Amino acid sequence: MQFSFSSRYRITPTSFLDELFRVSRDPSIISFAGGLPDTDLIDLDGIRDATAAVLEEEGRAALQYTTTDGYLPLRECIARRYQERLGIPAVPEEIQIVNGSQQCLDIMGKIFISRGSHIGMEAPGYLGAIDAFSLYEPIIHTVPIIEGGPDPDRFEKLIHNHPLSFFYGIPNCQNPSGTTYSDERRRHLAEILTGSGCAFFEDDAFGELFFDGKPRLPMKHYLLDQTILSGSFSKIIAPGLRIGWIYAPVPVLERFNHAKQAADLHSNLLSQMILVRYLQSNSLDLHIKRITAVYKEKCRLICDHLDALGLTHTEPEGGMFLMATLPEGTSSMQLFKEGVKAGVAILPGIPFYPHGGGEDTIRINFSSPSTEEINLGMERLKKAFRAL
Amino acid sequence: MQFSFSSRYRITPTSFLDELFRVSRDPSIISFAGGLPDTDLIDLDGIRDATAAVLEEEGRAALQYTTTDGYLPLRECIARRYQERLGIPAVPEEIQIVNGSQQCLDIMGKIFISRGSHIGMEAPGYLGAIDAFSLYEPIIHTVPIIEGGPDPDRFEKLIHNHPLSFFYGIPNCQNPSGTTYSDERRRHLAEILTGSGCAFFEDDAFGELFFDGKPRLPMKHYLLDQTILSGSFSKIIAPGLRIGWIYAPVPVLERFNHAKQAADLHSNLLSQMILVRYLQSNSLDLHIKRITAVYKEKCRLICDHLDALGLTHTEPEGGMFLMATLPEGTSSMQLFKEGVKAGVAILPGIPFYPHGGGEDTIRINFSSPSTEEINLGMERLKKAFRAL
Repeated sequence: MQFSFSSRYRITPTSFLDELFRVSRDPSIISFAGGLPDTDLIDLDGIRDATAAVLEEEGRAALQYTTTDGYLPLRECIARRYQERLGIPAVPEEIQIVNGSQQCLDIMGKIFISRGSHIGMEAPGYLGAIDAFSLYEPIIHTVPIIEGGPDPDRFEKLIHNHPLSFFYGIPNCQNPSGTTYSDERRRHLAEILTGSGCAFFEDDAFGELFFDGKPRLPMKHYLLDQTILSGSFSKIIAPGLRIGWIYAPVPVLERFNHAKQAADLHSNLLSQMILVRYLQSNSLDLHIKRITAVYKEKCRLICDHLDALGLTHTEPEGGMFLMATLPEGTSSMQLFKEGVKAGVAILPGIPFYPHGGGEDTIRINFSSPSTEEINLGMERLKKAFRAL
Repeated sequence: MQFSFSSRYRITPTSFLDELFRVSRDPSIISFAGGLPDTDLIDLDGIRDATAAVLEEEGRAALQYTTTDGYLPLRECIARRYQERLGIPAVPEEIQIVNGSQQCLDIMGKIFISRGSHIGMEAPGYLGAIDAFSLYEPIIHTVPIIEGGPDPDRFEKLIHNHPLSFFYGIPNCQNPSGTTYSDERRRHLAEILTGSGCAFFEDDAFGELFFDGKPRLPMKHYLLDQTILSGSFSKIIAPGLRIGWIYAPVPVLERFNHAKQAADLHSNLLSQMILVRYLQSNSLDLHIKRITAVYKEKCRLICDHLDALGLTHTEPEGGMFLMATLPEGTSSMQLFKEGVKAGVAILPGIPFYPHGGGEDTIRINFSSPSTEEINLGMERLKKAFRAL
């Protein structure tokens, strides 16, 4: 049977991704290539108690269909946190629950991108965003990440020369580079965007994970009605519950809601209720402090190892990733292959550049491996370098 | 701010759907317009025990990220049920977990439909499918549902005259009509499709809900390599868990998996594990028997009321819906409005016809309202008829 697939689906996946997938399942390989939060830091007791309370108190209602927008008490919790933590006047009516913030990327693509629409993003940029947007066949423009965020001159030219539907970026602890936009850069980008007709799609998966615990004002603060902001419980509570959200102006949210309904009716209700109960019974701030203290240590340890290897690298202020630059003439793809032979996986920078680049960079995840795994993995990486 | 939405999103939702939505939230209105399974039949104790066991035994692993294809033991349960119940040689490698079978509609649209692609479906057809497919801008052809399934002559002409990417249908207890394809019709449609290049997309949300408990052989049996079959736990265990699946030939599943990953990485892991545990510790067959016994009674009761009102209607063999035809000259939209005034909601047939039709039909859900609500609601419907 020869199936008639849509034009967007005639691409076949690369063998590199298959290999990466195989490697990520091999327990003998220490992986810096993934993007998992530290399993040991998931508050199992807290979630177990919350789950029992929900099934006790809500009963069958927790297992029935619900509305597409999401469980109102959860949307209220999210709005309140924006108000209290960042001073942003969020209301539940502007918030929609999704299956982790990855779903925001797909639905934003669906409602903003026709074939040939122009969109912008960072280079390097989040691989999951490139994947999600590409299926709607846009023309993707990129702006390089430099010190303090996207290059403002290149950004300004892009906004003036092309009718972008949106610019997608991760201002806090970016995936993959670990860069955080400076406050000044945020203001500057907001000035450029004002009156331009280009929305800013702000992915804030990591904004709660600053090592110093201090929140940074999001682009949403500078461009309230022009910014679509996404967030997630995956990195601060538990990814397996698959709950994130979008916080967007009402005209966007109406379309988003329609697309979400067509996509899967609504997100898991039991998980939404568990999260509300968890947030009522536990201090999220204290829990996050525990997570960031561990991540700060692991990040420091990896940076020390990379320094010892003589590699330059970004210095993340938080999040889960950093990026290292290889010595001239070293191929990240070759290093990946040698690494796998030595029992360690790193992620070449290449897939983070939709138009090529990143041959001499690697992304390193510091949240998932334990201290012991970091030490052993970095030894193996040294061996891989020597083999090159 | 004027946002630049994609071409597929310039449509604004109709005021009728807003009204329907309002009505569905009004507790003073008895609703036959929704599509919820009976809340009282959700096995709360069984799910509570399964949940506690999962969190006890799997611990934090139940709350971490997992692979896109879904939890292997759940895919094994699903494959085994196809083998044992229907004699179909399903294997876990051909099964992918999704957020309820609605997500299959969206992803199938994404991987099969380019703007202007031809697809086919039943008229009347499932509203959620029309919504999901329409966002990918196909040309939709319809085949009328007659006695025993889609009109075979019209079906044959359609398959011969247009290069369909797929034909979407619900052979068992169709939503909205309540019709079940006869075995003979299934064989006939399969013959027409053989060698045609048109896939059959078989939505089997209701195949476990036959009142007589006897399984019908799906189209997948007649066209193994040409059929993409979707299923769901929403109607037989609990909708709030949002877990369904697709069972498809590998070339389709590869693309489906890629699109699922871009859409939301994976489905809720905790729910997947709860379902496996539930299926291990409980008899699904006995539970389904309990459900169908109740639905059979409720369906019979509604049919009796409709007979007393002098309305012709379909005679479902199972599922959750039936369709009634109004006396000549009666508008279903007018009946909807009069019904709301009298405190009862029915669903006009109109939105189930992408190209118009259904003005004189209504869909009635018999799974959700209680016996008392059915009796009271039908009294109110009689009042609405008198007011017309």
